[in-house]
Amino acid sequence: MLKKIFIKAEILTMIDEQLMISNGALGVEGSQIIYVGETPNQEVLDQYDEIVDCAGKAILPGFINTHGHVAMSLLRGYADDLPLQRWLEEEMWPLEARFTNIQVKAGTSLSALEMIKSGTTTFLDMYDHMDTVAQVTTQAGLRASLCRGVIGFGSDELRKHKLNEAVSFATDWSGAAEGRITTMLSPHAPYTCEPDFIRQFVEKAHELDLPLHTHMSETVKEVQQNMDNYGLRPVEHLLNLGFFEKRALVAHAVHLTDSEIDVLWEHDVKIAHNPVSNLKLGSGIARIPDMLRKGIRPSLATDGAASNNNLDLLEEIRLTALIHKGYAQDPEVVPAITALKMGTQYGSEALFLDDQVGTLEVGKQADFITMDLTGPHMQPRHDVISHIVYAASRSDVLDVYVDGKALMRNRECLTLDEERICFEATQAFKAIVK
Amino acid sequence: MLKKIFIKAEILTMIDEQLMISNGALGVEGSQIIYVGETPNQEVLDQYDEIVDCAGKAILPGFINTHGHVAMSLLRGYADDLPLQRWLEEEMWPLEARFTNIQVKAGTSLSALEMIKSGTTTFLDMYDHMDTVAQVTTQAGLRASLCRGVIGFGSDELRKHKLNEAVSFATDWSGAAEGRITTMLSPHAPYTCEPDFIRQFVEKAHELDLPLHTHMSETVKEVQQNMDNYGLRPVEHLLNLGFFEKRALVAHAVHLTDSEIDVLWEHDVKIAHNPVSNLKLGSGIARIPDMLRKGIRPSLATDGAASNNNLDLLEEIRLTALIHKGYAQDPEVVPAITALKMGTQYGSEALFLDDQVGTLEVGKQADFITMDLTGPHMQPRHDVISHIVYAASRSDVLDVYVDGKALMRNRECLTLDEERICFEATQAFKAIVK
Repeated sequence: MLKKIFIKAEILTMIDEQLMISNGALGVEGSQIIYVGETPNQEVLDQYDEIVDCAGKAILPGFINTHGHVAMSLLRGYADDLPLQRWLEEEMWPLEARFTNIQVKAGTSLSALEMIKSGTTTFLDMYDHMDTVAQVTTQAGLRASLCRGVIGFGSDELRKHKLNEAVSFATDWSGAAEGRITTMLSPHAPYTCEPDFIRQFVEKAHELDLPLHTHMSETVKEVQQNMDNYGLRPVEHLLNLGFFEKRALVAHAVHLTDSEIDVLWEHDVKIAHNPVSNLKLGSGIARIPDMLRKGIRPSLATDGAASNNNLDLLEEIRLTALIHKGYAQDPEVVPAITALKMGTQYGSEALFLDDQVGTLEVGKQADFITMDLTGPHMQPRHDVISHIVYAASRSDVLDVYVDGKALMRNRECLTLDEERICFEATQAFKAIVK
Repeated sequence: MLKKIFIKAEILTMIDEQLMISNGALGVEGSQIIYVGETPNQEVLDQYDEIVDCAGKAILPGFINTHGHVAMSLLRGYADDLPLQRWLEEEMWPLEARFTNIQVKAGTSLSALEMIKSGTTTFLDMYDHMDTVAQVTTQAGLRASLCRGVIGFGSDELRKHKLNEAVSFATDWSGAAEGRITTMLSPHAPYTCEPDFIRQFVEKAHELDLPLHTHMSETVKEVQQNMDNYGLRPVEHLLNLGFFEKRALVAHAVHLTDSEIDVLWEHDVKIAHNPVSNLKLGSGIARIPDMLRKGIRPSLATDGAASNNNLDLLEEIRLTALIHKGYAQDPEVVPAITALKMGTQYGSEALFLDDQVGTLEVGKQADFITMDLTGPHMQPRHDVISHIVYAASRSDVLDVYVDGKALMRNRECLTLDEERICFEATQAFKAIVK
């Protein structure tokens, strides 16, 4: 197999023992990392088939986006600045009801392109028409954890049908795209799925050894509703339904009590923190510093672009490093490196892929990005981690690799046709609004 | 004088009566706007010397950054994640004491470059070595409101010297660079300047008809200190000193009571809101929605890059549209268009330049930028204001004009030497750290 080495870079491994390597090199054989360390001498370099000079660049693990609805990029900027329930029920759902495979393909392709161009290498998607999402993912070359998100409204028959669809999708696509696709089972939320229905998901997940994913405690209103309907806050509710018994990832977790944080920590429940979406929808500010103090390692996510309105994980990293400082009036909470780990290493843990990606280590899959360190906003260049977290922009991402394969080189996407995707997104959007 | 027209753009005028013009055109003669409207017919176009096709672009007023310390870009990423007082007194001031004209020139040039590349056309600077700042501003082609920020420590003689220096600078440079430079008088803050000394600034400002600028109520600690020392909160303290009698701009204004908001409104005090800096230093979250409800029109600012860590005003616009929604748990506060006005129109008011810039109107100076609307993160393109505020990136800024003169074209800076500035910034930084 072809051996490549990327040399003379500032390498951010995300491993504490050797966090930064100056004049570093990353060796790749096929899809795997075979070397991380200082740039070796010529004799060693001669053993590689290809040498890539990365002077003036940082190399770091690709960003990992642990919660979203990628097809919703088609509704970017539609019905902004409304509260979650109204936005969802009155604006999104009626339009989404008109989504066919055409809209899902167009929206997912647009998102895949946007994610690649902003340095995301792995994403989670919870949506409908998931075969289409999986096909686009395969073509784009991205890594993904995919699940058919099921809203439990309608007849028993309809619910049964949706559950079966979710299970079929999860079993059919698990391990597809040369292993880049993994799957989960996902009831949409406690406020859209009856307890019995959630329990059916839990049983299936345990039977098939699949992780579970759901929305939880995003708004005060939703927490109150759960208490009104079931006499419990969402964490205890899901706990009672067995949701946290094995592998589980919850999105949002904005409104938590101390004891709920304890329960999540005890059951090793993974968290997808969506700072921009939570701010934009007015949902609130999650207790990330408290979670970190407890030992929870929250991951980062964009949510759908309709409530963000982009899929820029670097922006989530920066906001995570900023908002909690201001909200707590404590500049020492969520240091830059913690926010960066949340967007990489902790993301791989949230998707149960930490044996494969999230850090730069020998034996892991070669999912990494390079970032330009030469722009004026990156000078003087004495603290690369600080600059990436607080000063960089998504457009500083130059190259994106997944499984050792280039998806973008010098900002040109190699797996997707940018012009066509932008055109088709507009067409697919117009077809449903008027 | 040469007549140019920029056609086929999406024009955002910032004037409510005609906020957006599709297939719009902007006509410029010399340094002034002579036409804003739909793209005219060929006969009219023939009367122009130059026609610039802006299809696929938005044209909007350049961003206005109303508070900062541009030379501090040299300390970007130095001593991150510390509280304001410690960061300022233990880290920044000792290093800044080593600043000579070399550091100020290097830092200011770096900032000018970064501001141009992110679409800022006007900035306020409060610092030392202001002749150098003014010279760089002149060369860069930017518009600026400049003031020598005076910290009132030391002997009476030293204070007197500094006040004289501030006054000389303000009178010498007022109206320089073909009118692009205006000046203010600026005691640094009530916690660094004794009341009598502030009063001397007030008297000079009134005598010379210059606006006043200062830091105010940035942290809880500073407000408490003001109460301990003078028995008053900062707003009443400054009010008593006459600071608000004529034109005044205060930076931060994070910690305000209802009655302080009333006082600021009654005296038409201008506000520079610095969301990123306030978050990063853990200072808190300003009461922007309450100010807006009262009728105050706050402007936006980055503060120095050492506490930000960039000078991207678009990021301040986005954060303003996001954080207040999340903090208030109300998605209807600070709509996208309000945040955009804060970064343009309200900025011009804060610098007392609203007769010249801040909106696109016939008779105003031709300070404007173009932004690329063709990227994947800007599709589908049905709400340009939403996309610019919530989805765009600084790298979507393509062209920057001040007084009708191009400072950047297709992302190439025309007035400054990018490579040299980046190199010199590193050299100047190294000279003072080791």
